[in-house]
Amino acid sequence: MSERPKLLRVLAGEALSPPPIWIMRQAGRYLPEYRKLRSTAGSFLRLCLTPELAAEVTLQPIKRFDFAAAILFSDILVVPYALGQEVAFLEGQGPVLGLLRDADQLDVDGLRTRLAPVFETVRLARRSLAGETALIGFCGAPWTVATYMVAGRGTADQLPARRMAIEAPARMQALIDVLIEASSRYLLGQIEAGADAVKIFDICTGVLDNEGFERWAVAPVRAIVERVKAAAPHVPVIAFPKGGGARLAGYAEKTGVSAVAIDWTMPMQMARDVIAAPTALQGNLDPLRVVVGGEALDQGVDAILRAMHGRAHIFNLGHGITPETPVENVERLVARVRRRR
Amino acid sequence: MSERPKLLRVLAGEALSPPPIWIMRQAGRYLPEYRKLRSTAGSFLRLCLTPELAAEVTLQPIKRFDFAAAILFSDILVVPYALGQEVAFLEGQGPVLGLLRDADQLDVDGLRTRLAPVFETVRLARRSLAGETALIGFCGAPWTVATYMVAGRGTADQLPARRMAIEAPARMQALIDVLIEASSRYLLGQIEAGADAVKIFDICTGVLDNEGFERWAVAPVRAIVERVKAAAPHVPVIAFPKGGGARLAGYAEKTGVSAVAIDWTMPMQMARDVIAAPTALQGNLDPLRVVVGGEALDQGVDAILRAMHGRAHIFNLGHGITPETPVENVERLVARVRRRR
Repeated sequence: MSERPKLLRVLAGEALSPPPIWIMRQAGRYLPEYRKLRSTAGSFLRLCLTPELAAEVTLQPIKRFDFAAAILFSDILVVPYALGQEVAFLEGQGPVLGLLRDADQLDVDGLRTRLAPVFETVRLARRSLAGETALIGFCGAPWTVATYMVAGRGTADQLPARRMAIEAPARMQALIDVLIEASSRYLLGQIEAGADAVKIFDICTGVLDNEGFERWAVAPVRAIVERVKAAAPHVPVIAFPKGGGARLAGYAEKTGVSAVAIDWTMPMQMARDVIAAPTALQGNLDPLRVVVGGEALDQGVDAILRAMHGRAHIFNLGHGITPETPVENVERLVARVRRRR
Repeated sequence: MSERPKLLRVLAGEALSPPPIWIMRQAGRYLPEYRKLRSTAGSFLRLCLTPELAAEVTLQPIKRFDFAAAILFSDILVVPYALGQEVAFLEGQGPVLGLLRDADQLDVDGLRTRLAPVFETVRLARRSLAGETALIGFCGAPWTVATYMVAGRGTADQLPARRMAIEAPARMQALIDVLIEASSRYLLGQIEAGADAVKIFDICTGVLDNEGFERWAVAPVRAIVERVKAAAPHVPVIAFPKGGGARLAGYAEKTGVSAVAIDWTMPMQMARDVIAAPTALQGNLDPLRVVVGGEALDQGVDAILRAMHGRAHIFNLGHGITPETPVENVERLVARVRRRR
């Protein structure tokens, strides 16, 4: 019998020393094996929707670093794609989306068919992983996905979505409601295919005021958690409300998530004070410390380990890994967390 | 004798009802008279450095709305320009800066000569203003200006400066120290020319962790306030640490500023709780509510007025006004704050 994955033990509230580690966007451009595969795989969206390739990318960082968890290789924008909005990833420009339709024209019922390749990726990856390695599925949070769907692209301040939320809150709510339903079905499909835990990425919450944070960040995540728990009560949900800051007080209770991922701007000691046990905390090394390496990296790691001693903690970065990160710095990071140097 | 400007009374801790109002970047692209002048004035930098034109732009919003204060029309990047770094404002692209020199090659002593046109703008504007209208001088905070100087442009996450702060903190400190000295001299030059108050714009603090916030946001502003107070003890300093969030507790005491401007993400009631009287508070209407107008605008105004009743408060936006703002919405805003509708 294989060992129960450490990641799941921590997500159940157990403190482990050393903590399990994985890193956000661990499969990606900083890895030469990813760049090699990417260069022959065609479009980025096609790569996300080709199970054999996406599964291989999902496993690449596990082969190299033996992380405690693999995370599905995909993108948050496969949901708008599956709902019928055009999505293209242009080299050097980031994602570009077609015209946003009215919420009632978005095709929630077609989602599971259109995203069947993602579920197949999860099946393939789960089959190749050892029992002690958890597989994390994910989606973007409704607010974050909506900011792309409304603007048609990534935006610095999410002005178009923020404007819609003020000018036409009922229209925004209708879009969010569709995304709640779509995201829940999408996560449940991943869970049926073998995901051991799921993560909801809400990376655009920093621009919301407190009222907006409650309505557009907290309430939709709670709605997804309720739907996931109803069908899969034992699968833990991690949320990453980037930019939540002081508003994270009460976030876990209100949403029902098992863990909160913390961005690099909030010290883990403060996160620990603000978010009560047994909620697990994930994070939060500044990705730039991994780019820089050396003392800056070691000090950052040590400070987090000290602050989280005795608390359920998953070591991770406080934001996605930067493409120019030297691989040897990731090796140093992993060894440091595992106390091997 | 003219009345003492209401803005200065509030900056001294007095609560006025209705509160004095001015709006950030009040001179700008939303005004037809600005667009007309801008179209014939040559480059943006030339406009900033041509006293007759810059003074005219400074006065435009006062003529139209009779705000409680005029703010010098200029740009935070005139300081790097004056220090000898190339600065150009490219249409549709924003500012582009030349190669950053080492701190000891930046020409602090040449600053007052190079920025003499700005001081002349202040003199001209002050001469044209009524005694009860305050004139606000300003500069960018060292951290914010450094993010542009290091990256050579505006950046979404200020990665280049954040990386330098981690990788080469001594080099960043040397740059910040030059900017402290340059900004202090620049503000004192504006005060000598007639500015009644000064404001330090620190719009890039949201990406700093707590330690970074103390070192790169709090300490440099304190150093500038000390230098300004030493030479001009009666001139109040306003700071705008955008993205400061919960870290604003203690900010006024540590920096010595008379007022803190609050961005739109923090409710004014929370700002009031976190920042003790007699420090004045400025803000914080979401600029998008002025774009949208109508009920969304009125409700936003009323909520702020309610939260700030009895506290020293300067009504303002929580970020710069958006160019597409209809002028009639600004009229509605001003009338609402003044309780004339």
